[in-house]
Amino acid sequence: METNFYSDNPKFHVAVDGIIFAYDEGVLKVLLQKRDFEPFRGEMTLMGGFVQENENVRDAALRLLLERTGIHDVFIKQVGAFGNVDRDPGARVISVAYYALIDMNLCDQELNQQHYGVWTDITKLPHLHFGHDVMVQKAITQLRDNISNSPVGFNLLPPKFTLSQLQSLYEAILGETLDKRNFRKRVAEMPFIEKTELVDKSKSRRGAAVYRFNQEKYDKTHNFKL
Amino acid sequence: METNFYSDNPKFHVAVDGIIFAYDEGVLKVLLQKRDFEPFRGEMTLMGGFVQENENVRDAALRLLLERTGIHDVFIKQVGAFGNVDRDPGARVISVAYYALIDMNLCDQELNQQHYGVWTDITKLPHLHFGHDVMVQKAITQLRDNISNSPVGFNLLPPKFTLSQLQSLYEAILGETLDKRNFRKRVAEMPFIEKTELVDKSKSRRGAAVYRFNQEKYDKTHNFKL
Repeated sequence: METNFYSDNPKFHVAVDGIIFAYDEGVLKVLLQKRDFEPFRGEMTLMGGFVQENENVRDAALRLLLERTGIHDVFIKQVGAFGNVDRDPGARVISVAYYALIDMNLCDQELNQQHYGVWTDITKLPHLHFGHDVMVQKAITQLRDNISNSPVGFNLLPPKFTLSQLQSLYEAILGETLDKRNFRKRVAEMPFIEKTELVDKSKSRRGAAVYRFNQEKYDKTHNFKL
Repeated sequence: METNFYSDNPKFHVAVDGIIFAYDEGVLKVLLQKRDFEPFRGEMTLMGGFVQENENVRDAALRLLLERTGIHDVFIKQVGAFGNVDRDPGARVISVAYYALIDMNLCDQELNQQHYGVWTDITKLPHLHFGHDVMVQKAITQLRDNISNSPVGFNLLPPKFTLSQLQSLYEAILGETLDKRNFRKRVAEMPFIEKTELVDKSKSRRGAAVYRFNQEKYDKTHNFKL
């Protein structure tokens, strides 16, 4: 069929690039790769790969994530397509960028080392080639927007967390300090952010209540504002 | 160079699809095409075309817009990439969708007819092939979001408009009735929505003040909320 309809038109390599975020003790980090191949061998870029025949573009991004972190079913969201002619000096490659949110604890450190992965503080990023700078900035903007209106941020936390951890996560993503009272007031308005019976005494003698995100309860209201 | 770095990987046709919006007397419309070619000859789809060699993806979208509407420098915004294997029965085609906002008065009717263009009320859309249904719904969601936080909606109006026209536009996009007093209060808080000396007496004897959007003033504040 292809020959009949579209064959007059050119074809292009299509890549996926991953802006893989994780949260590590108060800092939002993105997974970069020290390239051991050309072009730009030895320099830092995002993790990327090529879309294959009979592979949905989104599935290519999930495959990449699995290969680099060992995690199945990662939360990903498309940032957009990047299609400038001169974006990649190696050849014309149209890239579709996805941001991913992972729990740092689940990341396979051995796989990470095999791929020369380097977790980098988002406030201390080096220059990135292939327009990856722009992709990261767009992903951060989108992530900031998304955490205000939807519970995607919980993907960056372990299943059980304190409200201090949750607030620190939000502060790291937004790049600003939040008012504790207002933050807790908003959390209290969302019954799907549930208090458990557990108390975390690692930070104080009195301890802090431990919470979890209840997806089922959230699915009934879909009313998130933080 | 290409042979060295990437040649093991497959290549794909890449298309751009346009969700071309215009506002016509109280109704938000999208430009569909009655196809005179296969696949799906005779059925309705979005306007689309293929990205060419040495053409940025975004420029392909602008070229398409110019070819179909006769308008240069159309306001466009990327909706996203759509890359499922089975999206197009004709062949594997990865599509990047853009929404466009045009002033209906500027659209070249002759060009439109040449391309079998049909302006269609967004509340009365037929089924669209190639996943175009999903593209349109995503574009509408994005447009609704964008008109609240940025002055993109003015692209759908003539340069001079009354506040009734502006409110009707917002109501058509949002699909709901807005409170006139609140709407006008918010408009009054944005000095870049400027009252002109003109009065439109077409709708009433007393007439309605005519406004315009002042881009320069807006660029100084970037503070839009409507």
